[in-house]
Amino acid sequence: MALIVQKYGGTSVGSVERIEQVAEKVITARNQGHKVVVVVSAMSGETNRLLDLAKSINEHPNSRELDVLLSTGEQVTIALLSIALIHRGCPARSYTGHQVHILTDSAHNKARILDIDKARVEKDLENGTVVVVAGFQGHDEHGNITTLGRGGSDTTAVAMAAALKADECQIYTDVDGVYTTDPRVVPEARRLSRITFEEMLEMASLGSKVLQIRSVEFAGKYNVPLRVLSSFEEGPGTLITYEEENMEQALISGIAFNRDEAKLTILGVPDEPGIAYRILGPVGKANIEVDMIIQNVGADATTDFTFTVHRNDYKKALDILNSVARELGAREVNGDNKIVKISLVGVGMRSHAGIASTMFEALAKEGINIRMISTSEIKISVVVDEKYLELGVRALHSAFGLEEGSNQ
Amino acid sequence: MALIVQKYGGTSVGSVERIEQVAEKVITARNQGHKVVVVVSAMSGETNRLLDLAKSINEHPNSRELDVLLSTGEQVTIALLSIALIHRGCPARSYTGHQVHILTDSAHNKARILDIDKARVEKDLENGTVVVVAGFQGHDEHGNITTLGRGGSDTTAVAMAAALKADECQIYTDVDGVYTTDPRVVPEARRLSRITFEEMLEMASLGSKVLQIRSVEFAGKYNVPLRVLSSFEEGPGTLITYEEENMEQALISGIAFNRDEAKLTILGVPDEPGIAYRILGPVGKANIEVDMIIQNVGADATTDFTFTVHRNDYKKALDILNSVARELGAREVNGDNKIVKISLVGVGMRSHAGIASTMFEALAKEGINIRMISTSEIKISVVVDEKYLELGVRALHSAFGLEEGSNQ
Repeated sequence: MALIVQKYGGTSVGSVERIEQVAEKVITARNQGHKVVVVVSAMSGETNRLLDLAKSINEHPNSRELDVLLSTGEQVTIALLSIALIHRGCPARSYTGHQVHILTDSAHNKARILDIDKARVEKDLENGTVVVVAGFQGHDEHGNITTLGRGGSDTTAVAMAAALKADECQIYTDVDGVYTTDPRVVPEARRLSRITFEEMLEMASLGSKVLQIRSVEFAGKYNVPLRVLSSFEEGPGTLITYEEENMEQALISGIAFNRDEAKLTILGVPDEPGIAYRILGPVGKANIEVDMIIQNVGADATTDFTFTVHRNDYKKALDILNSVARELGAREVNGDNKIVKISLVGVGMRSHAGIASTMFEALAKEGINIRMISTSEIKISVVVDEKYLELGVRALHSAFGLEEGSNQ
Repeated sequence: MALIVQKYGGTSVGSVERIEQVAEKVITARNQGHKVVVVVSAMSGETNRLLDLAKSINEHPNSRELDVLLSTGEQVTIALLSIALIHRGCPARSYTGHQVHILTDSAHNKARILDIDKARVEKDLENGTVVVVAGFQGHDEHGNITTLGRGGSDTTAVAMAAALKADECQIYTDVDGVYTTDPRVVPEARRLSRITFEEMLEMASLGSKVLQIRSVEFAGKYNVPLRVLSSFEEGPGTLITYEEENMEQALISGIAFNRDEAKLTILGVPDEPGIAYRILGPVGKANIEVDMIIQNVGADATTDFTFTVHRNDYKKALDILNSVARELGAREVNGDNKIVKISLVGVGMRSHAGIASTMFEALAKEGINIRMISTSEIKISVVVDEKYLELGVRALHSAFGLEEGSNQ
């Protein structure tokens, strides 16, 4: 008998019929002898409907009141799912974030979970009751309702699993697992049966939108085994855990990519201590997030400095960089917002040489020019012209033998 | 400077535009120097939408979970109204029933308020903040969400007013006050500027649906002056208070009626002690509410017993009565579900003789046969055939000079 936390997202509970299907899945797990906690999101479309109501009054609604409003979405789902479970003879109780004491900080619309009072939940589980918890929401120390931001229901599920020391946290989505890359780009992409937290973090941060990054961090921190499954199809999904001794070691787990990048370069900056801060300080102050950063030695006593930002921030970053350039007496500023980032991710590359050269060779064969390179312990990222995205991803997927049916 | 509790029902907050109109009304009261607490219902249609969702899963959804579901309706409204107030520069804070500690018993779907923690509200009011409270909901001692039943937002408003010792509790509705009778039946019906709690209770219990009965009882018990006003038109509405010395004393305040009655009679029952209980006990056990009860001495040592029930319960009550009749050896059972009740209400009749005879005379003149009569200190009710409803109400309205413009 295991303790399982299941999380169902908005699409999985998007109608009464789907909520009833979820009830059946929950009951199946309970009939297998498991204690089950279910975390649910708002029915799909509901959060946007509520947001539209608020925005029709004020484009920037008060953040405390917005949380009061949005948190009703999940509350509707927990009630309906509990009604469906009880109707099927399965004892169930719903809890709002407030009722189950999901304590957060006071950062409305993007709060972080500080603590969960698990006593009430544990008592219900002991009695064989299925506990249905509203995702995405909590309350601060003053009793104000808070929300965790979009995708926050994943975080709720992982936090519940961590607090209860659950055996597994199952995230039900509209995909049946984590893939070697986006199947819309590479039809041969293969579902991974396992992936490590670190790899998943890199995949998520690079635009694979299966899980919210914070929930993966959280799961890793508390060592909660996380499984991504489909709500609509049977299947084992993808298990996300720490690397194990006997884990079949893949060289490369997957290829992630990000279409939202833009790159900016400042050339001929005096090569002095503190120069990186003088360039990136004003960018950070403007709330622009910087992704890759590369600094090269240039001609004479100068240096060239390149970084990437989200494409939406490109113009603003360019204006800032132009004014920084004048102050520093830099030679030139240029930029490009028609670029993409492609990354190989895999814990296997730690112990294998030659990954980078295989990567560069595969891209060269297709005549793809690499504009930037950046590496971490389990990732190699390259920036290429936007038009090469699909070609580059397919070439790498094939070069590393990630296809369906391949004996990796 | 006064402390005012305002309550807006579902129609008054039925759209974003109407919520913004409510915000303007609240701000007007605040600008007049008043401290304002606003209690709101769910947007019209919302409670039914949620109920339909639940019933599409189970015709009789679990009552605890139904309360979790339904309470989201008011939560949406408090957030939207607060957003509208803050957008207009008016400091405001929303509170769910849970947050403002509206403690109730555990009778889900029809809970009763036991206590309100006013400390938090008073602190906000001191700071000039408008407090926006979700009507209709509370929580029990175990933290479970409860609801007060349909129309319960009126009760919330009165309870808040009582706890805060408010100067007035204003109930905004889609009518501009309490009328001498239903203007759809008597176009000459006149708005009352004042009415006593007792009269209002009789009017409400007899089918004048302006206010929920429990809220009037509550207001009377705690002596909270209650004012019924229109959300859509300017005007003083109707003030409901205790009888005052200098109150212009109307003989009759109004004429109420009830179309939902059915009458049942059991004839020739042995006239023994406990007979009323033996007849009405089984009816009560079947959860059928009995309204009027009349017992007459019959022929020999027998008695005739007549009572009225809601028309929806007529068939069930008839079946029960037939089986009771067999047990008691009664002579006959009959019934009629084509009857209505018409009532004169007025504290003035306490000190005036002749009201009843004027009433019976007016009905006789129109050839209306009276089937049952029942009286209380401030009310005389008659049961007549359904077809005489409009004629009877109009005849009485005129006989007691209740018309618009009359010098009552």
